[in-house]
Amino acid sequence: MIIIGEKINGAIPATAKAIAARDAEYIKHLARIQTAAGVEYIDVCASVENNVELETMKWLIDIVQEVTETPIAVDSPNEQTCIAAMSYCNKPGLFNSVSMEGNKVDVGFAAIADTSWECVALLNSDKGIPKTATDRLDVFANIMAKAEEYGIAPSRLHIDPLVEMLCTSEEGIAVVTEVIREIKNQYPTIHVTGAISNISFNLPARKTVNMGFTVMAMMAGLDSAILDPTDRDLMGIIFATEALMGEDEYCVEYIRAYRQGIHGTVKK
Amino acid sequence: MIIIGEKINGAIPATAKAIAARDAEYIKHLARIQTAAGVEYIDVCASVENNVELETMKWLIDIVQEVTETPIAVDSPNEQTCIAAMSYCNKPGLFNSVSMEGNKVDVGFAAIADTSWECVALLNSDKGIPKTATDRLDVFANIMAKAEEYGIAPSRLHIDPLVEMLCTSEEGIAVVTEVIREIKNQYPTIHVTGAISNISFNLPARKTVNMGFTVMAMMAGLDSAILDPTDRDLMGIIFATEALMGEDEYCVEYIRAYRQGIHGTVKK
Repeated sequence: MIIIGEKINGAIPATAKAIAARDAEYIKHLARIQTAAGVEYIDVCASVENNVELETMKWLIDIVQEVTETPIAVDSPNEQTCIAAMSYCNKPGLFNSVSMEGNKVDVGFAAIADTSWECVALLNSDKGIPKTATDRLDVFANIMAKAEEYGIAPSRLHIDPLVEMLCTSEEGIAVVTEVIREIKNQYPTIHVTGAISNISFNLPARKTVNMGFTVMAMMAGLDSAILDPTDRDLMGIIFATEALMGEDEYCVEYIRAYRQGIHGTVKK
Repeated sequence: MIIIGEKINGAIPATAKAIAARDAEYIKHLARIQTAAGVEYIDVCASVENNVELETMKWLIDIVQEVTETPIAVDSPNEQTCIAAMSYCNKPGLFNSVSMEGNKVDVGFAAIADTSWECVALLNSDKGIPKTATDRLDVFANIMAKAEEYGIAPSRLHIDPLVEMLCTSEEGIAVVTEVIREIKNQYPTIHVTGAISNISFNLPARKTVNMGFTVMAMMAGLDSAILDPTDRDLMGIIFATEALMGEDEYCVEYIRAYRQGIHGTVKK
């Protein structure tokens, strides 16, 4: 499982406060604890006003790179911010994100085409988030046509089928699991990612719903996720699911991660 | 999901102590908390020496029936104990269990044939627990032939495909999920049950593995389970999985169970 650590995001109140106060120590702390949890990318999203977004991204990326070698996911709704932020990074990371909205996919794919950067691609378009699996797979087909045009291998893409809140659903997560299954069926080397915690919005005991969703999405083919890697329950269910799916013989990785303190109850 | 509450079992040290001391209040407490958690059956298993098993079963069943209307699962490795215990019950319950070992299936099925009792049937035989899915399904076919012979409808059966510990597995839970799927495919009205916590034997952070297993087994068709209904994490994942599978529109049952205190973090 490819974990993209979500904690350095100005949409999270504690992180926003640290950004506003230019509290570098807190950002370093977030970078360190996510690295210790074994993430493959540290997401960096400023979530500030446009006029200060780029300088904030640079400040954040510089700080993160002071304390960790972990590649960065440059995260902004503005493609130009992502492109500028790429140049602040010491090594290739993850472009987060493109979609079929406006010219985002062209701008983003052109920027990463001749690099080793990977890219998150969301399955929405100018019409919003497609309701049905078929419509979402149509958006996916358009993205893959663009990927081919720009010479980007499927293995560099993390397709986000868009996880929507369960509480307003009449059919559970059938649409999203169908989309995941079909994407992996068409392109076995592609990655499928998602923002896990979206599923439990507005529900009580959110962690439980997040855990159940993670198992079901992984069984469908999810192999990348944007989440809080210090959530020991969520990390535990990921290791457990890999073992249950037969991808961790004798539970070696599950037990190793437990011993490293990545999951399980915190010892008092 | 049909929950069979497992707490009144002499194999559990605290329960064994209460049985040895004839501590009726503790047994009543276990009956009450399991009823409050919404179980469909309260399992009663003495786990004592043969010569006192029957009197112990009667003592336990009488006590449980003093405080709850919930039907009882009469649980013993000895079919004759189960049969005698049936007569202590005020209403039909669950015969736990038969298997293709010795003449158990004939003795058990004959006892429940002309009643409304339901029955747990384990997929083992005189040769032990079959290793492959095919061999386990052969045992299942033999059980179903017996069920037909005794006129027992599939809907009265809870087939236990036998959950084995994950830590010694090289292929995860593929055998058990394949068996569950095929059983439900052949008999859509049958129940598939299992002792959830067996999966995590010898592993750290057992609850996490139990939760992951529950999701995967429910997706395969598990619709009954022998478990600790006061384990709020496990109960939560069952309600969450039903919602994620589209069996709980707008998460109504998930939210109701949370409000009733069946799952979620205990409020301090």
